[in-house]
Amino acid sequence: MPTVSINATRLNQSLLDLGRIGATPQGMQRLAFSPDDISARELILALMRQAGMESRIDPGGNIIGRKSGTSSELPAIALGSHIDTVPNGGKYDGALGVLGAIEAVQALTDQKIQLRHPVEVLVFTNEEGTRFHRWLFGSRAMAGLLEDEDRTAVDDDGVSMSDRLAGIGGNMNRVQQAGRGRDELAAYFELHIEQGPILHQSGTPIGVVTGITGRWVYSVEVTGTANHAGTTPMTARHDALVSASRLVLAVQSMASELEICRTGTVGTIQSYTNAVNIIPGRISLGVDFRDVDMDALAAADAEFRSRAAAIARLDGVSIDIQRFENTESVPIKPQMQDLVAAAAASTGLACQRLPSGAGHDAQAMAAITETAMIFVPSVNGVSHAPEEYSTPEDCANGAQVLLNLLLLADQRL
Amino acid sequence: MPTVSINATRLNQSLLDLGRIGATPQGMQRLAFSPDDISARELILALMRQAGMESRIDPGGNIIGRKSGTSSELPAIALGSHIDTVPNGGKYDGALGVLGAIEAVQALTDQKIQLRHPVEVLVFTNEEGTRFHRWLFGSRAMAGLLEDEDRTAVDDDGVSMSDRLAGIGGNMNRVQQAGRGRDELAAYFELHIEQGPILHQSGTPIGVVTGITGRWVYSVEVTGTANHAGTTPMTARHDALVSASRLVLAVQSMASELEICRTGTVGTIQSYTNAVNIIPGRISLGVDFRDVDMDALAAADAEFRSRAAAIARLDGVSIDIQRFENTESVPIKPQMQDLVAAAAASTGLACQRLPSGAGHDAQAMAAITETAMIFVPSVNGVSHAPEEYSTPEDCANGAQVLLNLLLLADQRL
Repeated sequence: MPTVSINATRLNQSLLDLGRIGATPQGMQRLAFSPDDISARELILALMRQAGMESRIDPGGNIIGRKSGTSSELPAIALGSHIDTVPNGGKYDGALGVLGAIEAVQALTDQKIQLRHPVEVLVFTNEEGTRFHRWLFGSRAMAGLLEDEDRTAVDDDGVSMSDRLAGIGGNMNRVQQAGRGRDELAAYFELHIEQGPILHQSGTPIGVVTGITGRWVYSVEVTGTANHAGTTPMTARHDALVSASRLVLAVQSMASELEICRTGTVGTIQSYTNAVNIIPGRISLGVDFRDVDMDALAAADAEFRSRAAAIARLDGVSIDIQRFENTESVPIKPQMQDLVAAAAASTGLACQRLPSGAGHDAQAMAAITETAMIFVPSVNGVSHAPEEYSTPEDCANGAQVLLNLLLLADQRL
Repeated sequence: MPTVSINATRLNQSLLDLGRIGATPQGMQRLAFSPDDISARELILALMRQAGMESRIDPGGNIIGRKSGTSSELPAIALGSHIDTVPNGGKYDGALGVLGAIEAVQALTDQKIQLRHPVEVLVFTNEEGTRFHRWLFGSRAMAGLLEDEDRTAVDDDGVSMSDRLAGIGGNMNRVQQAGRGRDELAAYFELHIEQGPILHQSGTPIGVVTGITGRWVYSVEVTGTANHAGTTPMTARHDALVSASRLVLAVQSMASELEICRTGTVGTIQSYTNAVNIIPGRISLGVDFRDVDMDALAAADAEFRSRAAAIARLDGVSIDIQRFENTESVPIKPQMQDLVAAAAASTGLACQRLPSGAGHDAQAMAAITETAMIFVPSVNGVSHAPEEYSTPEDCANGAQVLLNLLLLADQRL
């Protein structure tokens, strides 16, 4: 395997350059399809050209940069991520994966190294889904996972996704032609900031992602009896908020003390009889469980229902549980994880295995090719906020591990 | 003491007659100052006339019916309550106290009995305070407890309380002349439905009220850290809803298992980051503690603050507690309670002592005279709702105890 070094200064400069497009005092506002998104795409095309890549826009609006390999019959190894942001977002989410990928190719070109496989850099359309609420649009188009709702979506301004897509060079009528298969892509590797505090807290520069967590989301309705807070003795109450509070603590303890699944969160609560002199009669909760291991989610589901039934009996209330979202986890194969670990080792960097609690383009791409993800630390775990930050050193480490992963994969795949 | 019986059939008929005025399929809508309230006041004046009383309207809009006594220099013994309802209210709250009082006087008149003291029936203006949010208006006017806000209040239709008061025969400019003292009133007795389930559950026909509970109300703000529900490990969370749930259960256990105070209720909850994929960062709660014993409320206050401090330390959140309402309890003197118990015994009815968790005109009147209250069972404890119901037998029992209490007091006061 050749030794090739990325240029940390150049990578940091391109992060700064991209980070100026759509920057506001309230954070990044580079929403998919916006004028700033289009300016940023121009910058990406220029950087790809400079790095010796040919580029094209597929019907899904994805930018595909390509550097040919020595064996033209081999499928490409792809690196990538996205450059759209959420409102009030940060400069690193997505951007690091794209710019790190371009830097890796630039380093190969600078040192006149041609790999066996073609190398592609993929910049996916509307990963965040802030527009149209259809997230992972570009990667799902490439993986053949689009749904009817993607094709007919209209945004809050009344403009169709189809029109927006045409504005960045895509074409909804031919979007199925964005689909690709394993014959074209040998693997997809994504470098990303962790967006959580684990690596920052443990001081580990590289995260080997074990999978993208599955997610089961519930709507829970607790019905007790609304009554006068002054005249109803404690023994005669069926207080929906008391029962809901027991449920909140049950969810918390299931994921923390008992470790039945990785995370358990009650993110929403609403009271329908909301007066300080009335015993709450009805409360609704939104509950979110996540784990890479779907068996763990099944165990959490069973435990949650059993706890709820016990609380309902104890308090004389009724608890109705509806699961309204069921996102399957996307495990990353152990041999692909090992390849990332080997790339980190070859870079001389410590690594730690951890799941991704957030979603990424890699989870769509996993449907059509081998996938791996590299995480770098997020300072204080902050993301989707103006304070999102990863140090220049951590960013450069990530890009170097991505390049070494590409070099290893070029030999082994 | 003479034996005088009320007429249960007549009382029941007057409850039915009054209950038709302002009745709707959604319950009683006889709000203070409304055309229905004015019609009901006409009915009351007619019933008073029939019962041999002279009547007048004081500047607070209160109806005062009076039957003279044998000793003209003695202060009056007053019986009363109110006839305004909450929106979607019931037919018994207030109405029973007024009609029971008129029935007691009617029974005396029918049997040509004149007591030593003059007897008055007081019908207080705007007890519920649904209009103008200035409750106990009439009884506070009589007790000299009005505040500036009472005089300047304007309702949701932009009409001043002063205008509304003129519409029922009151006069805001002279409202301080509604004030009376112990020289005019030897005692005030109020018959009322319990509005809670205690008597109904125990099968006891008569409640001897030990006092009107004091009430401390708090606004509590729990501030944790909003964060991503997928990427933030359980160990790195400061979940405001988890801490708020511990507080809800602390309030519940303080009043139920530990019996530190009579009731503890968290009636309101609001989450400010209300998304199922975000760990709640800020939650506000409305907390209500009640007891007749103010020392019990002080103990609850101390325990609540200490529990909150422990939860804040445990969870790494901040908890801010503001007490925004501080209603003193109004205990009823043991000798007045004993007089009610004696009246029940003389009627051959079992009684039970219990506090009133709701407020009543009696709590204002306690500032100027001796006060006692008689409760009768509310079926299933329901009140302020169309389903509010007390059986004709229980209503008649209450009116008979009220009459016997009047006869006892006439001898002893």
